[in-house]
Amino acid sequence: MDEFSFIDSITQKYYRQSSLIKGIGDDAAVVRPVNGFDMITASDTMVEGIHFRLTTMNPYHIGYRILGANLSDLAAMGCDPAYYMVSIVIPKNWSQKQLEEVYSGMHDHARQYQMDLIGGDTVSGNELVITVTVYGYVPKNRSRYRSYAYEGDYIFVTGHLGDSAYGLHLLLEQKKAENRDYFIRRHQMPNPRVHFAQELQSLKRLCLNDVSDGIASEANEIAQASRISLELNYSAFPIRPEIKQYSLEDQKKWVLSGGEDFELLGTVAKEDWVKVQAAADKTNTKVTNIGVVKESRNNPQVLLIQSNGQKEKLKRSGYVHL
Amino acid sequence: MDEFSFIDSITQKYYRQSSLIKGIGDDAAVVRPVNGFDMITASDTMVEGIHFRLTTMNPYHIGYRILGANLSDLAAMGCDPAYYMVSIVIPKNWSQKQLEEVYSGMHDHARQYQMDLIGGDTVSGNELVITVTVYGYVPKNRSRYRSYAYEGDYIFVTGHLGDSAYGLHLLLEQKKAENRDYFIRRHQMPNPRVHFAQELQSLKRLCLNDVSDGIASEANEIAQASRISLELNYSAFPIRPEIKQYSLEDQKKWVLSGGEDFELLGTVAKEDWVKVQAAADKTNTKVTNIGVVKESRNNPQVLLIQSNGQKEKLKRSGYVHL
Repeated sequence: MDEFSFIDSITQKYYRQSSLIKGIGDDAAVVRPVNGFDMITASDTMVEGIHFRLTTMNPYHIGYRILGANLSDLAAMGCDPAYYMVSIVIPKNWSQKQLEEVYSGMHDHARQYQMDLIGGDTVSGNELVITVTVYGYVPKNRSRYRSYAYEGDYIFVTGHLGDSAYGLHLLLEQKKAENRDYFIRRHQMPNPRVHFAQELQSLKRLCLNDVSDGIASEANEIAQASRISLELNYSAFPIRPEIKQYSLEDQKKWVLSGGEDFELLGTVAKEDWVKVQAAADKTNTKVTNIGVVKESRNNPQVLLIQSNGQKEKLKRSGYVHL
Repeated sequence: MDEFSFIDSITQKYYRQSSLIKGIGDDAAVVRPVNGFDMITASDTMVEGIHFRLTTMNPYHIGYRILGANLSDLAAMGCDPAYYMVSIVIPKNWSQKQLEEVYSGMHDHARQYQMDLIGGDTVSGNELVITVTVYGYVPKNRSRYRSYAYEGDYIFVTGHLGDSAYGLHLLLEQKKAENRDYFIRRHQMPNPRVHFAQELQSLKRLCLNDVSDGIASEANEIAQASRISLELNYSAFPIRPEIKQYSLEDQKKWVLSGGEDFELLGTVAKEDWVKVQAAADKTNTKVTNIGVVKESRNNPQVLLIQSNGQKEKLKRSGYVHL
């Protein structure tokens, strides 16, 4: 493949973001800061055979999904997505058509948020690796840190938990199941909660973390960073009835450590809970109160309260790719 | 390897850049724009077996060099380096110690410019892939584009050409040679011309491109972007005497398309040439006038004038990794 003609093919003919001064076409991209806003940036890498397989996803999904993982990081900071950069390692057995489909998946997802592709690198190698770096703007001092949980906060989560892992399970087992297409779509084309988080930008304090490695892992990150404990009621968890049909063991595998739901886990002052509900309504997002934050400076932890009232300590057993 | 303890080991205990609000440790990094400055960002990916081999470089050099490639992009935009982000794919046969050496090489190079490591991703895979994204600040509207060359401009290049490719040649052929260590060091630990480019920030117009794929390629990029022609005098090229001992054919292979010298190729108005020389003096950088820019709107090209006066068209035959 000719690198130059490929770059030409992905270069945008116009910029969507007015803050973009120079996109693809020089040694680097140039952006103009937006007055009163901080800049947010994050990076995610996916490797064929580890994070995706062509047996469970087509190239379009791969592109759509990796940008989704990055968008989810931006949502978890409460910011407005602006640009993305793509570095890709291309193995010889990948065709130009497949590659274009990867970019098409990213492009379609990016367009939903008026994001511009501003650069990257294309090199050859033995396995497909895609690294996407994203950039966004957040009103000054309104970044949503994991360390912002306080005693007495309501804990909430968006959407449903376990959908993506259950969708992957259906794909891998090639099983027939009720609403199979819905769960598979949730796995292949995740839709991060960007609009919901944007709608909450006026809130002075909000703790957010995105569910990318499983809620067990993310809840522990919040507990550690905020030096508090999270008490989660399993019976309040938003879990689809199709998943509830399975044994508690199977359910928990998907729900607690399945990962990649790309929902938001957050905590908010009790008096601001109505604002979270209003933002959810306005952006057509399901949001569920699943617990409360407890003081625990010396022993931050996550406790899961079972339906029978028993408490168990939830370890950071989330899905760790490495 | 435990991902969490590894991340802990590379997390900085303090920030060097006052504009950095949040580095490693949340869903994304947060930076505060600097008044009157634009932000620059670029990304480079290197793959084991394609861009480096452990037979010609140790892990420390690999880290030092990939950050160097990125710094060179920032230099070519005329900006002040600020932060970097590292996404790495780690194969099973790499030890934690080797990995730490890669980060150590990046860290030592970054420290020279007070850069902060602000995030990234670590995943497993079958071959080592490192993607570094860098960020810097440039005074508003002072980015150094390839499209900024004008008729009558002096063309200049920093340092010496061909050193890195000749160093690699010595390594691969395991040859004894005069000043062998110098050339090998130029290959393994390139030092991009950041300070020189910073020193020129007061110049209103300056065209810069960094020599990463070979000057033949970069000169053509300037010609195309600026719609002009570059006439380069081969006899004026800064080439070390050790390289001049070889046949013209060998020389040209290293000098024109060897790539990865990470020097700067630029053009500047004739009346500003003294300022370029002054910046070179002040930053202890060699700079050489190697030609002149000619009007050529309808047929942008690069002409190489031989010692005997003959002109030949220099094609974009630079070293293309893909």
